Amino acid sequence: MRIDVVPTWQLVNPEQIRDKLAVVIDVLRAATTIVTALANGCRAVYPAATIEEARMLAAGFAREEVILAGERNAVPIPGFLHGNSPLEYPRKVVANRVLILTTTNGTRALRQCLPAAAVVVMALVNTGAVARYTVRQQRDLVIVCAGTRGELSYEDTIAAGALLHSLEKAGLEPELNDLAFAALDLYQVNHTRLATAFSRSVNGRNLIRLQRCRDIRFCASPDLFDLVPVFTGTGVVPLETLN
Amino acid sequence: MRIDVVPTWQLVNPEQIRDKLAVVIDVLRAATTIVTALANGCRAVYPAATIEEARMLAAGFAREEVILAGERNAVPIPGFLHGNSPLEYPRKVVANRVLILTTTNGTRALRQCLPAAAVVVMALVNTGAVARYTVRQQRDLVIVCAGTRGELSYEDTIAAGALLHSLEKAGLEPELNDLAFAALDLYQVNHTRLATAFSRSVNGRNLIRLQRCRDIRFCASPDLFDLVPVFTGTGVVPLETLN
Repeated sequence: MRIDVVPTWQLVNPEQIRDKLAVVIDVLRAATTIVTALANGCRAVYPAATIEEARMLAAGFAREEVILAGERNAVPIPGFLHGNSPLEYPRKVVANRVLILTTTNGTRALRQCLPAAAVVVMALVNTGAVARYTVRQQRDLVIVCAGTRGELSYEDTIAAGALLHSLEKAGLEPELNDLAFAALDLYQVNHTRLATAFSRSVNGRNLIRLQRCRDIRFCASPDLFDLVPVFTGTGVVPLETLN
Repeated sequence: MRIDVVPTWQLVNPEQIRDKLAVVIDVLRAATTIVTALANGCRAVYPAATIEEARMLAAGFAREEVILAGERNAVPIPGFLHGNSPLEYPRKVVANRVLILTTTNGTRALRQCLPAAAVVVMALVNTGAVARYTVRQQRDLVIVCAGTRGELSYEDTIAAGALLHSLEKAGLEPELNDLAFAALDLYQVNHTRLATAFSRSVNGRNLIRLQRCRDIRFCASPDLFDLVPVFTGTGVVPLETLN
């Protein structure tokens, strides 16, 4: 078995990923928000690359069943009632509704992975569930970090290390690429202080400036949810919905 | 002051690097070989991207003053008497001669950095010297890891962390990008076992297969040489040659 970590979605090669399992990580905050909403009863999350695409997707649903949400550079979009914080999506807000979330980077990361056999969304809040799913799959794995503005992101790489650590603990001994070894080291150094580590990153510093420290702490909380979200090509749904 | 670490030369943006100081790292083994040859009295090292370019450069020198060297995928080139191992370049071989070294990746990394104010070659064997030079420069710094086949390389990123660690010890408090934070963590985890760490990398495993373990141990030895090699656009020479 082979596991490669890719630092940004821009560097995903369709041939490298074909027929493998792809795990897409975007810890601050799109993936954490997607996992949290689904865990709280949301039927599906539709990631949209643009505001226009979000509005078009919303037009396909009854008004009361859809939540239109998202932001640009962590700042709200005029007319969108919700942002990109996982804390905005408790059960009373999202249960039995669909969430349309504009997230340029996250959406592109997911679409870039469509040649894979399956595309799974991971954040720290569901690392354990994704690890158990990965072990069952017995397939080569590509861990795709969304990255920040086309560069490696510290928090996504640490989360990749958390997944690799869980897979090692489960007894897997995969062949790793260099960034996978690096991710394991980053997790080793930071696993007792994840929120502090995330706060040092470009995304983390931006969230602190916007007074979203609670978001960072939430996104840095491992294994809050036992949920494996799967990207179907349009929406993200819990794995059990597909089975 | 700002310091960015770039994982591969392919990701160097000319505008990002313009007028800054560029430090190019290619630990296994081109940079280590360049530093070692210059420290042992070699007048200049000319990196060549192709075998043809190496032969053309050699034609400009008297036969006895030039050493034609290099390899492809760590395997010798027919007709080239020397390879890419730093251990092949003791004083008795290189003193007062010029070394023409074919190294596709290393050469491209250096040329990609030419918009910088200065381009310096670094390996672990001269990290301390480059750190002292960087402190004197008082300029924004871009640390360019050569990488391995277009991907981040574990050993180059650890060496970037060694430089950042030295700069922090010298009292610098630069703004860092996410990969710089990651590099510092990698150095922290691995600084007491550098040769072991290098042996896990793609390049390291390849060298082990070729029975070049001594090369890995040499390349993992910090601060053997007090030398700052500068790339002039054609050749690499010791800083003092330029002053």
